[in-house]
Amino acid sequence: MIVTEGSPLPVTGFRLCATHAGLKKNGDLDMALVHSTPPARAAAVFTQNRFQGAPVLYGQAVLKQSDTVAAVVVNSRIANAATGEEGLRNAADTAEAVRAALNLPTDTGIMPMSTGVIGAQLPMDKIRDGIAALALAPDNPSAAARAIMTTDTRPKMAGVTIGDVTMWGFAKGAGMIHPDMATMLAVVLTDAEVSKADLQAALSRATEVSFNAVSVDGDTSPNDTCLVLANGARGPIDPTLFQEALTRVCQSLARQIAFDGEGARHHVTVEVTGAVSDTDARTIGRTIATSPLVKTAIFGRDANWGRIISAAGRAGVAFDPDRARLRLGPLEVFQQGAPVIFDEARALELLSETDVTLHLGCGLGDGHATVWTCDLTPEYVDVNAAYRT
Amino acid sequence: MIVTEGSPLPVTGFRLCATHAGLKKNGDLDMALVHSTPPARAAAVFTQNRFQGAPVLYGQAVLKQSDTVAAVVVNSRIANAATGEEGLRNAADTAEAVRAALNLPTDTGIMPMSTGVIGAQLPMDKIRDGIAALALAPDNPSAAARAIMTTDTRPKMAGVTIGDVTMWGFAKGAGMIHPDMATMLAVVLTDAEVSKADLQAALSRATEVSFNAVSVDGDTSPNDTCLVLANGARGPIDPTLFQEALTRVCQSLARQIAFDGEGARHHVTVEVTGAVSDTDARTIGRTIATSPLVKTAIFGRDANWGRIISAAGRAGVAFDPDRARLRLGPLEVFQQGAPVIFDEARALELLSETDVTLHLGCGLGDGHATVWTCDLTPEYVDVNAAYRT
Repeated sequence: MIVTEGSPLPVTGFRLCATHAGLKKNGDLDMALVHSTPPARAAAVFTQNRFQGAPVLYGQAVLKQSDTVAAVVVNSRIANAATGEEGLRNAADTAEAVRAALNLPTDTGIMPMSTGVIGAQLPMDKIRDGIAALALAPDNPSAAARAIMTTDTRPKMAGVTIGDVTMWGFAKGAGMIHPDMATMLAVVLTDAEVSKADLQAALSRATEVSFNAVSVDGDTSPNDTCLVLANGARGPIDPTLFQEALTRVCQSLARQIAFDGEGARHHVTVEVTGAVSDTDARTIGRTIATSPLVKTAIFGRDANWGRIISAAGRAGVAFDPDRARLRLGPLEVFQQGAPVIFDEARALELLSETDVTLHLGCGLGDGHATVWTCDLTPEYVDVNAAYRT
Repeated sequence: MIVTEGSPLPVTGFRLCATHAGLKKNGDLDMALVHSTPPARAAAVFTQNRFQGAPVLYGQAVLKQSDTVAAVVVNSRIANAATGEEGLRNAADTAEAVRAALNLPTDTGIMPMSTGVIGAQLPMDKIRDGIAALALAPDNPSAAARAIMTTDTRPKMAGVTIGDVTMWGFAKGAGMIHPDMATMLAVVLTDAEVSKADLQAALSRATEVSFNAVSVDGDTSPNDTCLVLANGARGPIDPTLFQEALTRVCQSLARQIAFDGEGARHHVTVEVTGAVSDTDARTIGRTIATSPLVKTAIFGRDANWGRIISAAGRAGVAFDPDRARLRLGPLEVFQQGAPVIFDEARALELLSETDVTLHLGCGLGDGHATVWTCDLTPEYVDVNAAYRT
């Protein structure tokens, strides 16, 4: 199954478009619409943060009361989070404006999504004008992927084809990597026919090993959402193949998000094997991937196994340094509780590549996980310190 | 109860001294000795990391098999962690060399402590020469406090007197703030008479609200240890007063450690009230205090309530932004799920002070906690990236 990145794949029955509604001051695209004919089965995962933005609260209600979703409307620049009842009403009004503009029946759901600064209300006049423009805009999936960007440096897209069926998704942001941004949004579309329950189950499994396996700084946001829509236009699909496709697409989007972290110079892949369980492996991997000391060491091109083993040791799950082995790419640097004498020049060479892979073997069981992150650079601090001042 | 910081208080029956044993290349003091006559009751808390250095493993055994501790020997520069059986043997040999030099009976414990780089063996010739020098060195508690420093910018000391009784402690480092350093060490001495069980209970309570309530970057090290010795030279003390004294001394040392974080420009105090429990409050406080986005915002003098509320929301304990209030010093910036319009100039003024206090009221219960940290600056990244290269 080959994943296409960086360009759209056409998914039958979906129209995607974008417009500039005047939210971004520099004139960039700032609203996107996804319109599915027929309406699609929908599943979503939302932020685990107890601080949830209005679109997340409203979207959860939509998915509970509607069997299908006909449209998704996304605005960037303003997150509509920490906006109280007015914010919830604006989320509902946004959805209703899409319903009116597209002439959709009242029993199909419409999902509003927002990303951007927290604590500001949506300018509803601009949002309504934007929706009127989107209703008439031509299909342009690339533009939709660009319109949801905030401080992302590039759009994120991934797709696969499985026989007659296509799956394609786009995403933006990562956790709270971006200053004050309510951030991680992903929308995955498919023309396969899948029941709502199967769709939710497949998405939950895919999320565990994709969006839940990336980290830029460990912070999460009030608006994080991954939504998947299946409109059935191309008929059913083998469930195993569907799961694999969804996992691959989500992993690709998640990796693109992690590697686009602010100021990142390295794309870091942390592979953990031999943990007691997959969950333990992911916990160890995430602890390594969020350690400021590990991330500054990688920025400094330093094969600092001490920081990596220490991070694993504080993950709160079973870990025994005396049974652990650590490799930097192909280069073994630690085994059985003690450092290995390794070629420092070779380590520096490996750490000078953009892609850096750490492999930690725990020697305890069969649990494994892969986690993606980036390095921590002075630019991260500068960008995040300079945001409002 | 007034805490004295920055200078020693004499504690009856303890001799403290220091020497340069040739471990630090710049000629600074690098070994310290604490000698108690009579031998002292002892209690300790050790790193929660599953990666534990030889002195921690050895010290835990000493406390199990000996009723009293007569001496503590500390070396800086080399942590004796990730050193296998040879490291354990070296810890034991170090303790035995102290026993011989001080002519101590075999039934009193001797605690070795080490801090510095991981993965290197102790140079036992230098250690033995150092111990010989320490055996003859005059009492000099300030020198002992300096000798245990690694990349600390200043020694950390705190003491109180309660009637006839004195308590005084010294400490170094913080978590894993320092590159490759196995780091947080604290030794607290008192001439009060306290049973071993009471001492351990009091230390556990004190640690919860002191060393467990500081954070520089969330990383922990294989050697973190806080040891308390009570030699009884001045007789018994009221248990409530003793608990208060130990808590105050530990909090002072912990705060001094947090505020000496690499590159720190601000001393940050996070006060959490109104949580469901004290434990919840501490979890929320620690999550805020370890958030890279909160810490970069404070460096950037940005009253970024969105990042603070988001950090609280992902702490994994009960938290409802709609009931929360957030103050920056006296300035309210967020309440009941929405930002308050505040005086930006006043906020900038408050954030230009060295000391910054955040107060988060949760509105859920009576749980409260105070956590100390520092800001995240480009210097942190530079220092930690540049360490080995």
